[in-house]
Order: sequence, then C-alpha cells, then structure tokens
Amino acid sequence: MQIGLDLMKELSITSPTKIVLLVIDGLGGLPHDNSGLTELETACTPNMDKLALLGNCGLLQTVGIGITPGSAPGHLALFGYDPFVFTIGRGALEAMGIDFDLQPGDIAARGNFCTLDGNELISDRRAGRISTEEGKNLCHLLDGMAVDGVRIIVQAVKEHRLVAVFRGEGLSDELSDADPQQTGVPPKEVAALAPGAERTARIVNRFLAQTRERLAKHYPTNMVLLRGFSKKPDFPTMADTYKLKATAIANYPMYSGLAKVIGMDVLKTGSTLADELYTLEQNYHNYNLFFIHIKGADAAGEDGDFKRKVSVIEEVDRALPRLLTLKPDVIVITGDHSTPAAMAAHSWHPVPCLLHSRWCRPDRLTKFSESECRKGSLGLMPATSLMPLAMAHALKLTKFGA
Amino acid sequence: MQIGLDLMKELSITSPTKIVLLVIDGLGGLPHDNSGLTELETACTPNMDKLALLGNCGLLQTVGIGITPGSAPGHLALFGYDPFVFTIGRGALEAMGIDFDLQPGDIAARGNFCTLDGNELISDRRAGRISTEEGKNLCHLLDGMAVDGVRIIVQAVKEHRLVAVFRGEGLSDELSDADPQQTGVPPKEVAALAPGAERTARIVNRFLAQTRERLAKHYPTNMVLLRGFSKKPDFPTMADTYKLKATAIANYPMYSGLAKVIGMDVLKTGSTLADELYTLEQNYHNYNLFFIHIKGADAAGEDGDFKRKVSVIEEVDRALPRLLTLKPDVIVITGDHSTPAAMAAHSWHPVPCLLHSRWCRPDRLTKFSESECRKGSLGLMPATSLMPLAMAHALKLTKFGA
Repeated sequence: MQIGLDLMKELSITSPTKIVLLVIDGLGGLPHDNSGLTELETACTPNMDKLALLGNCGLLQTVGIGITPGSAPGHLALFGYDPFVFTIGRGALEAMGIDFDLQPGDIAARGNFCTLDGNELISDRRAGRISTEEGKNLCHLLDGMAVDGVRIIVQAVKEHRLVAVFRGEGLSDELSDADPQQTGVPPKEVAALAPGAERTARIVNRFLAQTRERLAKHYPTNMVLLRGFSKKPDFPTMADTYKLKATAIANYPMYSGLAKVIGMDVLKTGSTLADELYTLEQNYHNYNLFFIHIKGADAAGEDGDFKRKVSVIEEVDRALPRLLTLKPDVIVITGDHSTPAAMAAHSWHPVPCLLHSRWCRPDRLTKFSESECRKGSLGLMPATSLMPLAMAHALKLTKFGA
Repeated sequence: MQIGLDLMKELSITSPTKIVLLVIDGLGGLPHDNSGLTELETACTPNMDKLALLGNCGLLQTVGIGITPGSAPGHLALFGYDPFVFTIGRGALEAMGIDFDLQPGDIAARGNFCTLDGNELISDRRAGRISTEEGKNLCHLLDGMAVDGVRIIVQAVKEHRLVAVFRGEGLSDELSDADPQQTGVPPKEVAALAPGAERTARIVNRFLAQTRERLAKHYPTNMVLLRGFSKKPDFPTMADTYKLKATAIANYPMYSGLAKVIGMDVLKTGSTLADELYTLEQNYHNYNLFFIHIKGADAAGEDGDFKRKVSVIEEVDRALPRLLTLKPDVIVITGDHSTPAAMAAHSWHPVPCLLHSRWCRPDRLTKFSESECRKGSLGLMPATSLMPLAMAHALKLTKFGA
C-alpha cells in the first residue's frame, strides 16, 4: 500500500525532532569487473557501516521496476511525491536549473541553438555544441523582445542550451514543441493543444520568426528550437504536507530549484562537503528537515570513473562523525537513483538506503552496501515510502484510526 | 508501483539488442514427499545455476496472491499485459488454440460434444472423451449451418472439444453459457446478458436446437454444450508498446494464438526442444524478442508425474548452452504459472524467475530454484514487471523525466 501526501497531512504533527536526509546523487552502482564489488561495496565506510548495524536498510525503487529516473522524479520520490503524479515540464525544470525565478503565469521553454541549412532544414540540432560563452552572447541578442504585450526573457544555460520565458497575461502552456528532435526537417510551427492556447501559440511563433531574423547572419547558430512549454509547478509544500520546516543544502541550482518547488528554504552554501556541513551546523536550530545533496558521486558515475565515485563515497563517510555530533533524531543516507560507473549513466537499479534512529528495530547488517541492503528490513521499497518512515522514526506521525 | 503499457510506449526505443524469454510452462512446483525438494530443486541444472549466480532471481506473482492463473492470463502477464485488464473470452481463446482466423465481429464459443440421456439430461459432459478423429467427423456434420443470415462454422479441437463461430452482421457476445458445467441437468438456454444481444441469443438457441436434431442418432455424442461466447480481443501490439520485433516459437496453437493477439509473428517449428532451438537460430537476425514456449513441464505436472517434469527441466538445461551461443543480451527463464506434480494441476504458487544480462547487479545465488529465488533481488514481483525489467536490461528504455 502506498501512503499519499494527504495521509501525511492528516497524521503529521510538529515536533522539535530533526531529520537529516543525506542524498548521495547516483549512489547505487554495479560491480567492478575485477573485484565483483560495486562502488559502495568497494568504499571503506566504517561510519555508515556502524549506522547500518543498528539502523534499517533496504533498496529504494524510485519510479518503478526497470525505470531509470531523471533527477527530478528521483528527488520528488524521496520527498514522498509520486513522480507520476507530480510531473514538472521540461521548460520549468530547465528554468529551475539556472535558478531562474519563474513567476506564476510564466511559460518556460527549453531551447537549443541549432543550425539551419540553405533550405531552412535543421542540419545540426546543437549548432556544433557552441561554447557556453558564445551561447551567452547569442542569448543577449535575443533577450527582451516583446510580442503582443508579452515579454520574452532568454537566458543561457550551458553550451547550446537556453531557457526562453514568456511573461504576460493569459498565457497557456498547452503548446506543441517547435523542436522536431531530428535533422533534415524544418523547425515545427508551435500549435495550440487546447482551446485558449491559440494566442500563446501565435506569440511563440512570432518570437521564433523574429529570432530567425536576428540570427540570420550567425551561421551556424542561426536558429533556436524550443520544447517543453510549461508553467512553474504548483505542488503542495513540505510544510503543508509534513508540517516540517525544511531546508535544502545543495550546490547545484537544479536541486535547490526542485527544493523550492516544494516550499523548502534553500541555504547558500559553498562547493565542498565541508561547506555543506558548516551550513548545516550554522542553521541546525532553524529547521527540522535538512536535505543535503552531494553531487560528486553522480558526476563520477556519469564519467564512468569508478575510483572517483568510490572516493566521493569515502569522503562522505569521513564527514559523517561531524554530522552525527549534531545528534539528528533520524538520519537517512540514500541516493535519488543509481549511476553505475560501468554504465556511465543513470540506471534503473534500485538504490541502497539506510535509515538510522534510536527507534529502529535493528537490522544488524555488517555493511552499508547494495548486497547487504538486499537483506535489510526495508526490502525493495518504493522511494515514496521513505518520508513516512523517516517521519515515523522522528515521532512526527500520530496514530491512524482510534 | 506498477508500470503500464502506456509508459512502456513512451519510454521504449528501438535498438538491436535481443531478449529471449524462455517460458517453461508450469515451471513452479511443490516438494516431493520423500526429498522435500521441488521438481526444479530436484533437477540437475548446472547451466541455469550458472546464470542464477550472475543474474537476478525472484518469484513471479502472475495474477495475484492466491490466484491460480490459466495459461492465457499467465502468459499475458509475462508480456506485461495486466491480466485483469486484458481478458480473453474462452471461445476466442479456443479459436486461437486451433489457429482459427477469427474476424472482427465473429462470436466464438467453446464447445463439448456431450451425452444426453433419455430425459434430455446431461449424463457425460465429454461424451466419453471420443477420439479426435470422431470429433472431426461430427464437426463436419454441424459445420456450415445458417440461421437468420448468420453462418455457423464448427471446427474440431481435440477429442470431444470444438469451436463454434457465429459469423454475420450485428452479433453480440454478451451471452450466458449453454453449458451448465454439471451432469444430471439439461443444457441451458442461452440468454442475452445485455440489451442488443437478444437476437444473437435466439440464433444460438436455434443453432443448438438444429444441432440436437442432427446428432439425435449419434448417441453417445448426441449434443453439444457451448460456453464462453466472445469476440477476438483488440489489444495493443508488442510492436506498439515496446517497439519490439517479437516472435513466438511455440508448438501449441493456444500459445501461438495468444502471441498473434499481441501482434507477434509466429514461426513454424517442430515438436522438440531441438526443433525450437533450430527455429530460433534460423530466425535470430530477424527479431529482437523471442518467446520460446516449452510445454512438457506443464503436461508432466498435470499428469502428476514428478519425475517426468524433472527430466523436462533437465532437458531444457542441457539445451541452454546451445541457446547461449547466440549471446542474447537478456535471457529470462520462467514459467506462466506453477503446476506442481503433487497437485496435478495449475496452482497459485509464485513462479521462479531468472533474468540474466551483463547489466544485472548479481544476486550470487547458487541454484535456480524456488527456495533460492525467494532470496533473489527481484523479490516477489508482479509478472507484469518482467517486461519493463527485461527492456531495461536490454537498454531499450529511456530515462523517465529529466
């Protein structure tokens, strides 16, 4: 049985107990050819292992069996938000990723600079992956246009990628993509997908026509492809749902953006794990849920760098005693998905998870690892069940029924 | 969380990787009184055991806890089709079983030749299990009647079993059975179960009356019992859903018929496992999903023949190296349900399942068996999750969300 946000809202109570959710992005892995051990199994993690002994372990199924989650659904599931119900459009997500302050009513689209050939057909969807610097300059060229009272904000993301935000009255995000996601064809006209979206479609198409003009002489970056028109999501907040004062300590805008969407505060922090811990310590009295995001493991996994992923995990383990000095009532260590170095990509493999609190019925496992987690009391658990479990162990849930 | 066909349709991509789904019909069993070991546990299966070591194992729940599946729901679940949603009527299923080319609009019914006594009461529902030859001759006698513009095609199945197909305009399959499924009572009048089915009910009853007349002098096969009136199912295809070129290598028309319903090609093959493997080899380059059906284990189980079921499993194991020479990217070995020899029938017990691919996080189990599968990483898994998992391991699914 899956426990939804409504039930959490009904059962949750405010209390001073504190939950730390340590998300090691891409934590799950696959065995190394030589040793037969995964990244986590290879890492020397005496502090995590000590928690595994008295805590509960299991494997989290983020989205569903066989499904590889993106970062957004992966994190939403950890926070208890069913990723099939709480979906975020591509455009809104990209805007969150550059920390763009999307307003209610704004329509955001994800964009690429691309190359059109002499016949106005797309010859390169990424315009040769131009530099981030170049992308920025070209975005300046397009930023600030106005069409029919609607202002269009264009901001660079990285390399050829950009965000276009349409700001004005009465806009709709029920629009088809302009990006055909293939070469040898022209960009598509944007069409209304619902009644009432026709005006927005016209505005977007006029913006795109003007963009084509402005970029005419900038071959090979002579056009922009837009897709994923979407509004800022309107999700219940962590405060509404769990009665938590929740905060995010995360270095990457994508994750802090996601945290904001569910009403978390976002704390300014530095780029190292020590910085993140310092931020935690400084703000420990102000909140009762701390989402700490550690990017390094995922980045190493994506690079196919087994050894580096191992050392990121070991670095987290070494930092753990400092974190535990704060004596959080519940500490959870897990990931938002697996990123096996062997695959150099996100994967569908379930994610090791450890929950420690003085109220655990101890699993007495000897190591925090994929293979030990398989024997843990959490079993193969939907990630959306993690928050109810953390809340319970923090004694923040009342009884269901009399 | 269960992943439906719609999500598969959204996430699946075409790729050259190949999946082999080896279905040992009725694979699951119960311990022998003497040894305490099931059929699979008794069998010497070094090749499957090797796959279990590096692959993932679990127990499949075909329909639901405690539910004994028929062959059709059992197989549909393996292909990812929720057997509660995708139901096939008995008549349509029986028609599929003899490779009858059911047309849209046709109503098929499953039939038995039976014996009526002097009081028009059923004394034997199977007319003494007449020979298949005799059944064929009697079907000729009934085939081709017409009632109210509707043509009735009668074809023999096996022994006393037959299929009756009503072909004409405006027919409904919302009909009650004529077969009371007990003796000592008369055959039932067929009744309309929904408005609009009254005419079809009348036609069927007139056909049955004429059948009684034609068979009057053929005691003990002097009547036909019909049940399971149904149309050809209209299901999404494997190609639509998974973007797979899928084929079935199956000896029994029931299974090839089922495969056709979900758009699989059906390959002509011989009656032995070696024939099936030869067919696989000859067609290996043409497809990327191969459903290989092995009937022997179920037949032995139904006969209560523990020893024969063991040897069928051992025969499959011996053939495995030949199959593995093809180096499929994913191989799955499982069954559509359990058929314990101790019960001489299908049963509700979950079915051992093994999935092997180079992208498995290995379970390191020492044997492919019910008791080891219980420790496997797949846990007790809904059978409908098998295809998403196989697709994932074949790298045929894209990420969910950004």
